[in-house]
Amino acid sequence: MRRERVRDLLAQVADGSLAVDRALESLSLEPSESLGFATIDHHRTLRQGFPEVIFGGGKTPEQIVAIAARIAERGDGVLVTRLAAQAVESLEEALPGIEYNALARTALLRPGNPPPAGRGTVLIVTAGTSDLPVAEEAAVTADAMGCRLERLTDVGVAGIHRLLARRDVLDSAGVIIVVAGMDGALASVVGGLVRVPVIGVPTSVGYGAAFNGIAPLLTMLNSCAAGVTVVNIDNGFGAAAAAARILHG
Amino acid sequence: MRRERVRDLLAQVADGSLAVDRALESLSLEPSESLGFATIDHHRTLRQGFPEVIFGGGKTPEQIVAIAARIAERGDGVLVTRLAAQAVESLEEALPGIEYNALARTALLRPGNPPPAGRGTVLIVTAGTSDLPVAEEAAVTADAMGCRLERLTDVGVAGIHRLLARRDVLDSAGVIIVVAGMDGALASVVGGLVRVPVIGVPTSVGYGAAFNGIAPLLTMLNSCAAGVTVVNIDNGFGAAAAAARILHG
Amino acid sequence: MRRERVRDLLAQVADGSLAVDRALESLSLEPSESLGFATIDHHRTLRQGFPEVIFGGGKTPEQIVAIAARIAERGDGVLVTRLAAQAVESLEEALPGIEYNALARTALLRPGNPPPAGRGTVLIVTAGTSDLPVAEEAAVTADAMGCRLERLTDVGVAGIHRLLARRDVLDSAGVIIVVAGMDGALASVVGGLVRVPVIGVPTSVGYGAAFNGIAPLLTMLNSCAAGVTVVNIDNGFGAAAAAARILHG
Amino acid sequence: MRRERVRDLLAQVADGSLAVDRALESLSLEPSESLGFATIDHHRTLRQGFPEVIFGGGKTPEQIVAIAARIAERGDGVLVTRLAAQAVESLEEALPGIEYNALARTALLRPGNPPPAGRGTVLIVTAGTSDLPVAEEAAVTADAMGCRLERLTDVGVAGIHRLLARRDVLDSAGVIIVVAGMDGALASVVGGLVRVPVIGVPTSVGYGAAFNGIAPLLTMLNSCAAGVTVVNIDNGFGAAAAAARILHG
Amino acid sequence: MRRERVRDLLAQVADGSLAVDRALESLSLEPSESLGFATIDHHRTLRQGFPEVIFGGGKTPEQIVAIAARIAERGDGVLVTRLAAQAVESLEEALPGIEYNALARTALLRPGNPPPAGRGTVLIVTAGTSDLPVAEEAAVTADAMGCRLERLTDVGVAGIHRLLARRDVLDSAGVIIVVAGMDGALASVVGGLVRVPVIGVPTSVGYGAAFNGIAPLLTMLNSCAAGVTVVNIDNGFGAAAAAARILHG
Amino acid sequence: MRRERVRDLLAQVADGSLAVDRALESLSLEPSESLGFATIDHHRTLRQGFPEVIFGGGKTPEQIVAIAARIAERGDGVLVTRLAAQAVESLEEALPGIEYNALARTALLRPGNPPPAGRGTVLIVTAGTSDLPVAEEAAVTADAMGCRLERLTDVGVAGIHRLLARRDVLDSAGVIIVVAGMDGALASVVGGLVRVPVIGVPTSVGYGAAFNGIAPLLTMLNSCAAGVTVVNIDNGFGAAAAAARILHG
Amino acid sequence: MRRERVRDLLAQVADGSLAVDRALESLSLEPSESLGFATIDHHRTLRQGFPEVIFGGGKTPEQIVAIAARIAERGDGVLVTRLAAQAVESLEEALPGIEYNALARTALLRPGNPPPAGRGTVLIVTAGTSDLPVAEEAAVTADAMGCRLERLTDVGVAGIHRLLARRDVLDSAGVIIVVAGMDGALASVVGGLVRVPVIGVPTSVGYGAAFNGIAPLLTMLNSCAAGVTVVNIDNGFGAAAAAARILHG
Amino acid sequence: MRRERVRDLLAQVADGSLAVDRALESLSLEPSESLGFATIDHHRTLRQGFPEVIFGGGKTPEQIVAIAARIAERGDGVLVTRLAAQAVESLEEALPGIEYNALARTALLRPGNPPPAGRGTVLIVTAGTSDLPVAEEAAVTADAMGCRLERLTDVGVAGIHRLLARRDVLDSAGVIIVVAGMDGALASVVGGLVRVPVIGVPTSVGYGAAFNGIAPLLTMLNSCAAGVTVVNIDNGFGAAAAAARILHG
Repeated sequence: MRRERVRDLLAQVADGSLAVDRALESLSLEPSESLGFATIDHHRTLRQGFPEVIFGGGKTPEQIVAIAARIAERGDGVLVTRLAAQAVESLEEALPGIEYNALARTALLRPGNPPPAGRGTVLIVTAGTSDLPVAEEAAVTADAMGCRLERLTDVGVAGIHRLLARRDVLDSAGVIIVVAGMDGALASVVGGLVRVPVIGVPTSVGYGAAFNGIAPLLTMLNSCAAGVTVVNIDNGFGAAAAAARILHG
Repeated sequence: MRRERVRDLLAQVADGSLAVDRALESLSLEPSESLGFATIDHHRTLRQGFPEVIFGGGKTPEQIVAIAARIAERGDGVLVTRLAAQAVESLEEALPGIEYNALARTALLRPGNPPPAGRGTVLIVTAGTSDLPVAEEAAVTADAMGCRLERLTDVGVAGIHRLLARRDVLDSAGVIIVVAGMDGALASVVGGLVRVPVIGVPTSVGYGAAFNGIAPLLTMLNSCAAGVTVVNIDNGFGAAAAAARILHG
Repeated sequence: MRRERVRDLLAQVADGSLAVDRALESLSLEPSESLGFATIDHHRTLRQGFPEVIFGGGKTPEQIVAIAARIAERGDGVLVTRLAAQAVESLEEALPGIEYNALARTALLRPGNPPPAGRGTVLIVTAGTSDLPVAEEAAVTADAMGCRLERLTDVGVAGIHRLLARRDVLDSAGVIIVVAGMDGALASVVGGLVRVPVIGVPTSVGYGAAFNGIAPLLTMLNSCAAGVTVVNIDNGFGAAAAAARILHG
Repeated sequence: MRRERVRDLLAQVADGSLAVDRALESLSLEPSESLGFATIDHHRTLRQGFPEVIFGGGKTPEQIVAIAARIAERGDGVLVTRLAAQAVESLEEALPGIEYNALARTALLRPGNPPPAGRGTVLIVTAGTSDLPVAEEAAVTADAMGCRLERLTDVGVAGIHRLLARRDVLDSAGVIIVVAGMDGALASVVGGLVRVPVIGVPTSVGYGAAFNGIAPLLTMLNSCAAGVTVVNIDNGFGAAAAAARILHG
Repeated sequence: MRRERVRDLLAQVADGSLAVDRALESLSLEPSESLGFATIDHHRTLRQGFPEVIFGGGKTPEQIVAIAARIAERGDGVLVTRLAAQAVESLEEALPGIEYNALARTALLRPGNPPPAGRGTVLIVTAGTSDLPVAEEAAVTADAMGCRLERLTDVGVAGIHRLLARRDVLDSAGVIIVVAGMDGALASVVGGLVRVPVIGVPTSVGYGAAFNGIAPLLTMLNSCAAGVTVVNIDNGFGAAAAAARILHG
Repeated sequence: MRRERVRDLLAQVADGSLAVDRALESLSLEPSESLGFATIDHHRTLRQGFPEVIFGGGKTPEQIVAIAARIAERGDGVLVTRLAAQAVESLEEALPGIEYNALARTALLRPGNPPPAGRGTVLIVTAGTSDLPVAEEAAVTADAMGCRLERLTDVGVAGIHRLLARRDVLDSAGVIIVVAGMDGALASVVGGLVRVPVIGVPTSVGYGAAFNGIAPLLTMLNSCAAGVTVVNIDNGFGAAAAAARILHG
Repeated sequence: MRRERVRDLLAQVADGSLAVDRALESLSLEPSESLGFATIDHHRTLRQGFPEVIFGGGKTPEQIVAIAARIAERGDGVLVTRLAAQAVESLEEALPGIEYNALARTALLRPGNPPPAGRGTVLIVTAGTSDLPVAEEAAVTADAMGCRLERLTDVGVAGIHRLLARRDVLDSAGVIIVVAGMDGALASVVGGLVRVPVIGVPTSVGYGAAFNGIAPLLTMLNSCAAGVTVVNIDNGFGAAAAAARILHG
Repeated sequence: MRRERVRDLLAQVADGSLAVDRALESLSLEPSESLGFATIDHHRTLRQGFPEVIFGGGKTPEQIVAIAARIAERGDGVLVTRLAAQAVESLEEALPGIEYNALARTALLRPGNPPPAGRGTVLIVTAGTSDLPVAEEAAVTADAMGCRLERLTDVGVAGIHRLLARRDVLDSAGVIIVVAGMDGALASVVGGLVRVPVIGVPTSVGYGAAFNGIAPLLTMLNSCAAGVTVVNIDNGFGAAAAAARILHG
């Protein structure tokens, strides 16, 4: 339950448009609820502006549907990440209107009222075409959390003029998420060009000594541009959540 | 053969209810027995209170069935872990009454006489729903070894009120097993709240820099709460065996 | 040269208070300048709001003094990090007024005009007393970049009531930097309590399987709290630079 | 403040031997106290039966003395681990009667009333003479926490008869701590011989592919004896704290 | 071509039973022969007592058959290791009489004259049933190279009496190969009991922190028993080849 | 667009054989072009002598075909590496004449005019038959870039006479690419025999402690022969590109 | 002995200016010579154009001097790398005229006749001032091997305009050596800008997750610019030797 | 006590030259003896042909002297490895006649009767001069254990003619120990040339990606020459002990 909605409820009570009992019912929900195999954190929206996001990895379709259904009842929207293809159908049946994104491996049920928009735009920059699934997970998440989006795709440093030609886009962003595998060098270059927050997402794109993303992870952690921060390998979701903290925080 | 049973045999001999020859036959079993591809440790129950547990990984269904059958003849019960689905049917045929647990990937044949109950309760705490298979392996093992069980599920530190709301459950446990992947931070928090033994089980839940469980393993080994011990990644069995050592030792 | 100063120069030219020639001289500085052993990036302030920071590691005292002196001439202030003790004296001689901080291993020469203050406060939270040198590097950097500061020290998760008792301080911060070694669990707990940006700084505090900071680095990268970002091990400077990007960006 | 002491205070109030105000003063201490550079967890004894232990690594002598002095005022005893030699003198001056152990690198100030004895004996087994410093840290800690101690030294598996000859000592222990570097194989052998809890402490003894303790750490984590638990490399303190949890829990 | 055969040829020439031209033809084979995709080392038998062994990994069935056929023409026997199941049929067609061992994943075509027997027996000791495939690769190789074989199976250190009960078998061996996964501790224990050469083969049996054999590899490299040598993970072939060097060298 | 072709265009304009407008059209192509999911670097040929090579890993067949088609329109030829089998058919339909090499996993569309030949021959030396796929990727790439090719196959150091017998081939090469897995020792031996550039390509051939190519990668990086350089594991493409830089640079 | 000198000797014999016996003496030197603790490779100059270079690491001053003296007698010059300061004096006494370079930790005795100049210039580009010692080792080596040198210092990607401003220098080089620590991103950017060979030298500059050079090593191995090759961490010598192979090969 | 000596004692008793009581005294020594900080394995000589060797690492001079003195009393000789320089003097005082070898860091007290000579010669081959300390540890150990010795020094593969020129020495050895750092390639080349046992000792010689010996360790574990075995990094002692097992076993 978002803060705004709590305030609304209280205002309605104040002006008599909502009976105290009904308001009480809405508000008296426990901060967490046990489903046996899961304990849902119903206060997450209040604390952090967005309900608990369901990490699909290692969960059965039944578990995902049950958790998603319970969160959806609160009306704050539902986001599932790392969603295996075989869980999609039952999820779509249980929650009509949920939007499945095969590239991002996400499912999103938008809340009734859109979340408040933040201060600026999230720019998602990718080094190569193979980084797109991770970038798309970031895009779906940022969108779900109410951020405006812009994209710059396949502008890796092997042909750096592709990036420099778009200085205008870089300069107008509020937060930049740089998604890159292999050498991960793009995060440093972007970090050196702009003054806004830059969040690096190393990807598992590459082979051999890319070590499934360790190479770009280390590159970004050691960025010679000051103040670049990093999230886990392939963690587009986390980068967008960090961007939302920045723009809404 | 459990110590209690050896004492019973001797008592029966003492009071004349068992012929010396029959007692001798029961007792004269070799401490170990070779099946060619395996050497069964028949003294394990005497030494450690529970018969040899069969690690199913890397064994053929035929090998598992043959070893299980031979242990079952001793009457002390059989536990198989990491059991591949394709070995279940032949195991169930060979040992009627054996209980297969698909989530835990275990098969358990209970002994004729239940093992003696230990001093307290084993509480199994999980950080997330995806950690349940490992927690279930711990639960089946603890149950097989005669421990009372309690569970607290999906109370990871991202919503720490879920855990703090259950201080009563934490405080009443005899041993606590904390099962957590990703950041594995739950073990430290629990370790700081209670005075009883806390055993951490890092799980391979997560992706990227979770490195299949290395991240929570290191977290737990470096726990800032004093006296938290750790077992191998995904080793629910080992954690429960350690808990049984503590409660029965 | 900070943007504000460029605007001032132009305004002075506009109102006739500054001769065009003098303004030209100030503005016509090359964007970079070679000292032979170094190429100073004089446009860094314009691009990123703060001049190039001198990383003292692997540089001779002579090199550090020469670079610092050249940057100081521009009037934007100088920050040296990872400063070895033996370079302090000659630096203090060359740049009177520079402030050496032995705990943080930094030297700071403040600019004539203080940098503009950003939107909120940087709260630096440490898990233990041994993490203080890294926290202090962050504090000096944030201060140099014009951020307001607050601190919460030694509130690691082994005694979590120490942190929960200070929810008010957490809730009033604009950005939170969490500095922690060993299990690094504090970042996840803080990340789950607040909605503002949280930047984790793993430290090399600990021993054995802490692996000089790898353990808390992995913990923080795998934080189960969404949107926690991470910088390099012991990189207090980088965390503060990221905070400044957020508050000034 | 230990639970027993709280009970005593209350009993004294009940029978009139202690004025309510004095009792209040003793009890009203804040659960934590800030020294600026440290936040002391004064409730640790109540929660866990032993006051906060001071990890000397990375702390200045001044910080150690200040924290130790503040804990000592509560009367529950003080334990410092990883104590650098140069901090010993000032610590001994500040806290007369504190016992410095150069081999263990510990300093122990015993509480006025000895802690209650637990259920059994802690047996500390070492593989080699070079493992003694870590074993001694465990011994000092266990002693400080009120455990009875026994030792078996230099009984590594290269001459396994040395261990087998002492089966009696192994069989009479309540908890066994196995301290071993290099191949770390001793933990598995001991774990297979006894039914009581076995805690492995890998040490950094060895060279080359021992990787400062990684080799025995992995050995112990993969112990083929069921239910062996492990603590961090060289963490004698942690093993003893775990043993105390088991024997007093 | 084995040394003995070369000597025979020369003796036959000496006593007139072989025409010089025929001898020349046999001897004049190039020391290596190119098949385009492979260069066969035909002198390997002369230099090392056994022809080139074909590593099946990464080779197509066609390549394996072609190389095997060419080696077989020399009459010295053929051994293929790491043979994928799909290559077996065509190999059996091309080289009738070749013996496929599914457990060991080997195919062996024995030479016309058996190789000379070496000085003693190779004893292959395994820690667990899951280690059998690697042990079998060692057994097939040792057999192919003319070594006598003995086996001790499933005698891991969790039940060390199983091993100690067979001291006689250990004492009568010429070389001992110890095959063990997980903690790999068996190699150290065996190494401490005998005076003959002990070769450790770590296996990838286990999970989690066994890291596909790294754990037992490190254990064996750090064996506290002096003079234990080690081969690559799962390298039963290499261990047997080393044993053959020792017994025939 | 290759430099030669630009010069031709200009020459044609100079002698009147090409209308200015047509020349303009050819030259006025943007240096990069966005396809939405990709940004093609059309200046790569001008800058580096060969158009952008398409890395097939992580791209959908549709993306590969679209990018390849757009590059092909420029007339400079197309090279796709790491091409999954399922993308071949649609690629062959879209670009008739493209040559698929299943061993190398490449597809090559040759440009209308062959690229200029460089200064010497690229010799590709492999340690074993299993290294051939990587060697073939190098061969296709070198061929595409206009290099003359020679090969020496399966001459690993276990039978070093195979290599020494071909000193003539080694001595006549312009650049040598050494492709080797397992111990990777061949690069050092070749490096010590010749004076021309030697580029090592470690391969993922092997098992266990070969760690998917880490072993030969480290071997080559530590080559005791001076001046051997290294590319990523299995990166036949990169080695050939480096050879082309040397021979055409 | 360089090839040119052998040809000279033969020419002198041919024209009668050198007695056959004296020529014989010069030529009849053994290809290698044993000093007991070292076996000098006197044919290295003939085979590779430069005499054996002495790696000073792990050698005593006495050993270094003895080897250097013996090589110097051949008249081809001597190069010592990784020279500890305490060996300098005795080396300078033994070989007057040897040039010690403290920054590069090298000592160079130039040969009587300078080596022939190669085809182009070696450009050494460094990312930061702290990378200079490695760059200097490369410079001394390249100089010793007869290469012309140019330098571009402190042009890391955090301020990429510093590099782009010097496109002319990049474009005129024959080979480029890129020396960079931390993120190592500079190698990819340079590799994308030029068509000549680019050799990356990762340095151990940095801290934390730079892991003493692993981070830039992985970055360079995964360079998205095609055909960048890499040498060992801090191996300025190797990079220059590779450059000399390219320019003289 | 060596087997031969036990046999002598018994023979003396048999022929009346030794009183039963005296013989009893000599023989009745306990198989192990506790010194408090050490448990000496007095049966080691009987079991393995050589008394317990003292690993000096991590032991105080007092401990080393006490253990050495106690072993020396048995008359079988004493060997100390990894002996720190500061322990030498007290050791020489306590055990006159002990031979200190500074290069090998060993001290050897020869037994009254030399150990029996084994079947052949141990050849110690080193790749470079910097590998000599490890080779010397092997030499001292092999000598102490009664092996004949031969050496081949500084014959690394960068100049492979140095090795090939000494085929005669290689061919006449009974066991070959190959000591090599950096690329470790020498073990494979030697392994491919001979039929006798080859034991590789990787050394920590090198820098950067040699990772203190990991690089040559992996090279040797992955040797493409069949049957090369490996010991720990820098473990000259272990290699010689293995050689002694082979030659005396």
